[in-house]
Amino acid sequence: MVAQDVIVGPELRLDLLRRERTGIAETVYGPGKSAGQCATAVAGLLAGGSQGPVLLSRADDEQAAAALSTNPGGVRMPTADGLFLLAWRTCPPRPGHVLVLTAGTADLPVAREAAAVLSAYGCAPTLIADIGVAGLHRVLEQRERLDTADVVLVVAGMEGALASVAAGLTRAPVIAVPTSTGYGSGLSGITALLGMLASCSPGITVVGIDNGFGAACAALRMLGEPGRGDDVRD
Amino acid sequence: MVAQDVIVGPELRLDLLRRERTGIAETVYGPGKSAGQCATAVAGLLAGGSQGPVLLSRADDEQAAAALSTNPGGVRMPTADGLFLLAWRTCPPRPGHVLVLTAGTADLPVAREAAAVLSAYGCAPTLIADIGVAGLHRVLEQRERLDTADVVLVVAGMEGALASVAAGLTRAPVIAVPTSTGYGSGLSGITALLGMLASCSPGITVVGIDNGFGAACAALRMLGEPGRGDDVRD
Amino acid sequence: MVAQDVIVGPELRLDLLRRERTGIAETVYGPGKSAGQCATAVAGLLAGGSQGPVLLSRADDEQAAAALSTNPGGVRMPTADGLFLLAWRTCPPRPGHVLVLTAGTADLPVAREAAAVLSAYGCAPTLIADIGVAGLHRVLEQRERLDTADVVLVVAGMEGALASVAAGLTRAPVIAVPTSTGYGSGLSGITALLGMLASCSPGITVVGIDNGFGAACAALRMLGEPGRGDDVRD
Amino acid sequence: MVAQDVIVGPELRLDLLRRERTGIAETVYGPGKSAGQCATAVAGLLAGGSQGPVLLSRADDEQAAAALSTNPGGVRMPTADGLFLLAWRTCPPRPGHVLVLTAGTADLPVAREAAAVLSAYGCAPTLIADIGVAGLHRVLEQRERLDTADVVLVVAGMEGALASVAAGLTRAPVIAVPTSTGYGSGLSGITALLGMLASCSPGITVVGIDNGFGAACAALRMLGEPGRGDDVRD
Amino acid sequence: MVAQDVIVGPELRLDLLRRERTGIAETVYGPGKSAGQCATAVAGLLAGGSQGPVLLSRADDEQAAAALSTNPGGVRMPTADGLFLLAWRTCPPRPGHVLVLTAGTADLPVAREAAAVLSAYGCAPTLIADIGVAGLHRVLEQRERLDTADVVLVVAGMEGALASVAAGLTRAPVIAVPTSTGYGSGLSGITALLGMLASCSPGITVVGIDNGFGAACAALRMLGEPGRGDDVRD
Amino acid sequence: MVAQDVIVGPELRLDLLRRERTGIAETVYGPGKSAGQCATAVAGLLAGGSQGPVLLSRADDEQAAAALSTNPGGVRMPTADGLFLLAWRTCPPRPGHVLVLTAGTADLPVAREAAAVLSAYGCAPTLIADIGVAGLHRVLEQRERLDTADVVLVVAGMEGALASVAAGLTRAPVIAVPTSTGYGSGLSGITALLGMLASCSPGITVVGIDNGFGAACAALRMLGEPGRGDDVRD
Amino acid sequence: MVAQDVIVGPELRLDLLRRERTGIAETVYGPGKSAGQCATAVAGLLAGGSQGPVLLSRADDEQAAAALSTNPGGVRMPTADGLFLLAWRTCPPRPGHVLVLTAGTADLPVAREAAAVLSAYGCAPTLIADIGVAGLHRVLEQRERLDTADVVLVVAGMEGALASVAAGLTRAPVIAVPTSTGYGSGLSGITALLGMLASCSPGITVVGIDNGFGAACAALRMLGEPGRGDDVRD
Amino acid sequence: MVAQDVIVGPELRLDLLRRERTGIAETVYGPGKSAGQCATAVAGLLAGGSQGPVLLSRADDEQAAAALSTNPGGVRMPTADGLFLLAWRTCPPRPGHVLVLTAGTADLPVAREAAAVLSAYGCAPTLIADIGVAGLHRVLEQRERLDTADVVLVVAGMEGALASVAAGLTRAPVIAVPTSTGYGSGLSGITALLGMLASCSPGITVVGIDNGFGAACAALRMLGEPGRGDDVRD
Repeated sequence: MVAQDVIVGPELRLDLLRRERTGIAETVYGPGKSAGQCATAVAGLLAGGSQGPVLLSRADDEQAAAALSTNPGGVRMPTADGLFLLAWRTCPPRPGHVLVLTAGTADLPVAREAAAVLSAYGCAPTLIADIGVAGLHRVLEQRERLDTADVVLVVAGMEGALASVAAGLTRAPVIAVPTSTGYGSGLSGITALLGMLASCSPGITVVGIDNGFGAACAALRMLGEPGRGDDVRD
Repeated sequence: MVAQDVIVGPELRLDLLRRERTGIAETVYGPGKSAGQCATAVAGLLAGGSQGPVLLSRADDEQAAAALSTNPGGVRMPTADGLFLLAWRTCPPRPGHVLVLTAGTADLPVAREAAAVLSAYGCAPTLIADIGVAGLHRVLEQRERLDTADVVLVVAGMEGALASVAAGLTRAPVIAVPTSTGYGSGLSGITALLGMLASCSPGITVVGIDNGFGAACAALRMLGEPGRGDDVRD
Repeated sequence: MVAQDVIVGPELRLDLLRRERTGIAETVYGPGKSAGQCATAVAGLLAGGSQGPVLLSRADDEQAAAALSTNPGGVRMPTADGLFLLAWRTCPPRPGHVLVLTAGTADLPVAREAAAVLSAYGCAPTLIADIGVAGLHRVLEQRERLDTADVVLVVAGMEGALASVAAGLTRAPVIAVPTSTGYGSGLSGITALLGMLASCSPGITVVGIDNGFGAACAALRMLGEPGRGDDVRD
Repeated sequence: MVAQDVIVGPELRLDLLRRERTGIAETVYGPGKSAGQCATAVAGLLAGGSQGPVLLSRADDEQAAAALSTNPGGVRMPTADGLFLLAWRTCPPRPGHVLVLTAGTADLPVAREAAAVLSAYGCAPTLIADIGVAGLHRVLEQRERLDTADVVLVVAGMEGALASVAAGLTRAPVIAVPTSTGYGSGLSGITALLGMLASCSPGITVVGIDNGFGAACAALRMLGEPGRGDDVRD
Repeated sequence: MVAQDVIVGPELRLDLLRRERTGIAETVYGPGKSAGQCATAVAGLLAGGSQGPVLLSRADDEQAAAALSTNPGGVRMPTADGLFLLAWRTCPPRPGHVLVLTAGTADLPVAREAAAVLSAYGCAPTLIADIGVAGLHRVLEQRERLDTADVVLVVAGMEGALASVAAGLTRAPVIAVPTSTGYGSGLSGITALLGMLASCSPGITVVGIDNGFGAACAALRMLGEPGRGDDVRD
Repeated sequence: MVAQDVIVGPELRLDLLRRERTGIAETVYGPGKSAGQCATAVAGLLAGGSQGPVLLSRADDEQAAAALSTNPGGVRMPTADGLFLLAWRTCPPRPGHVLVLTAGTADLPVAREAAAVLSAYGCAPTLIADIGVAGLHRVLEQRERLDTADVVLVVAGMEGALASVAAGLTRAPVIAVPTSTGYGSGLSGITALLGMLASCSPGITVVGIDNGFGAACAALRMLGEPGRGDDVRD
Repeated sequence: MVAQDVIVGPELRLDLLRRERTGIAETVYGPGKSAGQCATAVAGLLAGGSQGPVLLSRADDEQAAAALSTNPGGVRMPTADGLFLLAWRTCPPRPGHVLVLTAGTADLPVAREAAAVLSAYGCAPTLIADIGVAGLHRVLEQRERLDTADVVLVVAGMEGALASVAAGLTRAPVIAVPTSTGYGSGLSGITALLGMLASCSPGITVVGIDNGFGAACAALRMLGEPGRGDDVRD
Repeated sequence: MVAQDVIVGPELRLDLLRRERTGIAETVYGPGKSAGQCATAVAGLLAGGSQGPVLLSRADDEQAAAALSTNPGGVRMPTADGLFLLAWRTCPPRPGHVLVLTAGTADLPVAREAAAVLSAYGCAPTLIADIGVAGLHRVLEQRERLDTADVVLVVAGMEGALASVAAGLTRAPVIAVPTSTGYGSGLSGITALLGMLASCSPGITVVGIDNGFGAACAALRMLGEPGRGDDVRD
């Protein structure tokens, strides 16, 4: 098992073969790391011999600047609260149509993180925002897109009902992403999470609260890698 | 404050003026009472000089038999799990159109308790069952009924999304009743309760889990009493 | 289904027919929107051809200023924590008497939000503050108001007992609004919420924690619209 | 520290000096013990040289029979669900007026356990049942009793609001006992417990759910022992 | 929207086009239905003109017998606790390799429900049981199967760690199914559910506790339907 | 019921007879009030004709200064986090010995609030800090004080075990006050709260988390008022 | 990695090298297995070539009889609720002194399971029952045993305070085992669990609720295996 | 029991014999103490006649400076968030090999606190960071270290699966430390805590969330003190 990891100082252990094993390369998660550690980790992954995108997620301004200065050529995409997803060595466009729906405007930062990850892997999604079920016609207007999508991400806070409604209108896999938007009885996303798990529409799967990154990774697993024999459908 | 109550033995205190004060007479709640106590309490309320329906809720076979034997003329309506709502001195039909919707078949017992209480007060509702949002057209087919209802009760377990969808399609007050149906992540009704409270559709109000009785009482408060100056709208 | 929505940029989708469908127009919710987005959304709703009030809720100073500058003629009402409800094209006074009670002084911001929404729809309520049940005579002094109200809102934190007591003294619908006031065992409103849902007074309905806006919408649904055949009581 | 305990077989260790230390003798708790163990434990306490009552709580028919057969002279008082409190060597009547209030009929078993313990210690309480705040006049009728009580126990499930109301009408210490009565949103007593802890009436103290025994012990601590210098007030 | 549903009596509304819309036909859920209702519902779905499997889930002996007697030709597959999945008009074998892993023997009933649903749709999975991470070599032995699977279901209770480990060893989508096995701190599946949602392995999605049925439906969505243009990968 | 209240502006309703009814005067709770409101409320209570202490709790520097400037003669006692209890018209010393114990140094602010309220009512307590059960001899050293106290307050965070231990060593009523000190598994006081409610020592009563004020009020109720016939013991 | 496991039918996978890897052999957990599966699994472990004890835990009468009939020579030890721990090929006595303390009699079944596992591994513990902190002298009497024990297990429900007190009196590792005994606020062991985790006595570790088996395994890890170089202390 | 404590002012009570009783001296916990109190407490412990290390934990810059100025010769070790562990009179190196593993980089502050405490007691651990189970080979690479360790600490947030995996690969006691790292469904450490308690690997014990200090103390208890007869193994 030689050369699987690069150990950067005593505290970072880069899993270079993760892309090979799981389809998705190790991503540097910004929070809790110094700007220097971010830059070094990105450099290690770029130099490691592994292929495909290198991502730095939830980076603040300082981390982003340091990482880009050390590693030129990265793309910087805003997600939420002044944070960014940075991507180096992004993939060329690939087939596979992902539809990202949000119930409200406040769910956009989580949706944007998912969209940025998908884009870095060559799979730019269609993002339709603000179609919560209080105005049902807004969902119904998306029926054709729902019919033809390969994967549907539903990003919603509050009671998360959009996931149930959308899943009843599509044959595609539906990945529900609960968000912590709203206040009071939304319980910071717990209500949406529970509602999505208990949905009356069969075949929904769920990721953690605000986990746009994880939802994108799940979508990539479902799409498989073009030109490789590992796609879901034989 | 004389004669407000009838005290039946040391343990029952019948609030005879509750109908006068709140529009809804004191109801005898079966669980935890002996068959004899049920019969005596009903008799006390019938004899107490107060007007309007006398109800015995969640009665089992033995309680129902005892109460009907002591107090002839009662109506016996099945609700759930072999339990009954019994009603004496029911009201004549009155105006006011209540629409009771359920998401699934399993929500029917709670809906039936609400319907039985409403019927005892002269307000037989329209009950439409099994129209959960996984098959959205089933809700959309009820749009006309939703348009013309005076009050809408939505009885739903699991994620309770029907409440949000229905409230977006009606001007009537919507009373959401979470039910404990389902298993696992429905958390015995907590998930539906939270979802209804956090709904993205403004103007929904919620009652406790499985509380069909309370939902009916709330609907009666909203309808007001015919011929009395206390209806909601002046 | 043409012209139901105005799409403002890629991220705002204004539901112009919501007033027609539900009696209450789409409201712009300030948090998470830029000042410019707030101003644009208000402008879109005003221009959309729909009738009735246009509201911007929980706006901070900057959002309020931008929205008023772009859309002159709005009314600015303080609610809580330096936030405002802004209203354009408010309704003329209409019949219907809403009584808003608070248990303590700390519940006032939530009560004020409810009152501001009601006022914008022409239904200025009577607001009685600081009558918690520790001094029961304060509630009892309101008995006449409770007798004659069309709808009662009870805004309370801590244990929320005022809702149970008030509901025992009125025939009107009672909408209970739990608040997150207090500390420790109040659990940021969970305690009041649970207490109101489990109330021994039948016929209470509940909205989410601190949801003064939702409570006002529910009250408006109950009152119905004057001159339209959709009021609750036929 | 010799002779403090009697060790009955390998599994029972009787704390003979607990009465001396705390005013309340060790009580044999029935559940989980064999009928023989119950009988032996009672015998050990009676023989142990300590003074005052010996109690066996929550005993079923078989445990009660065995204990009474081995230890004649015990008094058997029904509490709930076919269980009993048994008492030997009960105290003569003593001064101190305890008022036990219940919100509903379903709270009676817990109230009866408290009353039985108090009676065994010579302090037979006044028990007033079924005066929940939905019919407020029922509480108000007890104002004189509340004025003159030395200790007030409030036994209530659902939202437990009776504790707040009663505490606003008395100078006596108020011990609130949440009960697990009710269903759904009462959460088996959690709602009442939280409501009592968060009460707006200052000076309420609370015991565990359904803990009538603990409430009685607390009341006895507050009353102190007649003729001993340890009463609360000097 | 005619002929979408068959309404069987007042309480069953069969959604005949659900297979067309979502790929998965409406399934009759046994609990809470009478044996007769089960039989009638299956008959309605078989007669409804829709294609593909008709399933009756979590049926007990009596329900199964009634349904099979009315509708001959069904297959009866044991799942858990004396319950069965019954299937009529099952699909012929189709491509797509689903791997179902369980952490322990106690997770088998949930895994069997998933496997039975998949089999009815023509996609008999490989089921590998009892490979929890306490003996890590058992997972490692499955590396080749993990490499070649199209979809992986991980069924696990307790802490659910198998999902994280398996997801690190495969490029396939991983659907994690928390189970309520175990006692104490497993909190009836909540612990496994939370652990799977918070997993350090990116790209896991989760369904509700014990929801083998939902997991199978999600897998079917991911596989797409052979010969139809709706498979995930273009 | 005239003259019970003083209404100060539209938002403050001072309950002047609360001292008469409950032994404890209405206290002005600082948080959420302006400095001016605090000053006015104190003035209203001082002028209201009621007797005994007037308290302003959890006041910050500005509130304290305003209240003292408008109402000279107040005493200012630090409690926690830069907040103060202010007291006017304090009582002369009275009999009754209250012992206040804390488990750790971090529990002192809550203990100090309790002590300050007791002092204002003439009942200066003995405060013994930092005697948690990890060093059991520290509790045992207080055995004599525990023997002679009239009321014992135990203020503790973390697991709150000091309450159980102290209650086993005294005949006095024990009021347990859970605090939110500590981190992680202390769950901001929930752990201590639950532990105190479930204590194996019979006769403990509990107040809300960090509620030193409520604990002091409960102690005052237990002590009764000197010279009045309402003390607990006859 | 050949011969690590024995696969018994399709559903049992016996981890033969677990003893070698972790010091504790795989144990057959009875619940959810048929009597035949239990017997077969035990036989497989006995035949597997691994050394040391073979255990069958939480077996009912039927499982125990089948396992003993197929595999003679097993020892049957009662634990709780009519269940048994069965052990074959038990170890000879070994050094290492484990002290098992219980707070109450009701905690004994959990303590007995721990003791039975320890005995099977040659390490018969000293079991001292019913020494809860309400009678503190009972703990203090065990000081010498606490001083000399190598490992201390504290088995306690309710508030679990015994763990904190015992840990303050010993240098040995303290393993706290929360139990689900008690009712109401004990929350089926959650209260004890949280209290033990938040203990003010440093160095306590905790296992899951009612997990006597796990506590024994942890104790065995701490003692190390005699004659092998893996004991904790070098 | 003379001279057990030093009382420093009215609010600090130093337990001088805690080292003698439990092997671990009383540690000064910084939060909530003034810089002066920290300095005084350290001085009191140093002067108290007790032997072994004196620690000040979670000290900020000001507290650290004051303590070091008053008590020269202390060692200052960074832990987390700008806080420090300070140690005076540290122990010389002693035998006993502790292995500290972390799942991610974000778990390092908690691991560092544990390592610092161990080092002060002479037992410098081996710290291996960032070996979470998503890249399983990273754990497997540590098999030899796991084989030879005397105690293993596993510090992990998110789902905490590393504890289960590591415990399956070692005979040593495993102390699991859940951390509050991560967001959303990690629930600030609750998820990891529950997962570790419910682990399928027998013999894991757990400490409170983020409690690196407690984990180190537990490890020290397990190692025993060199040259004293209290080590775990006889």
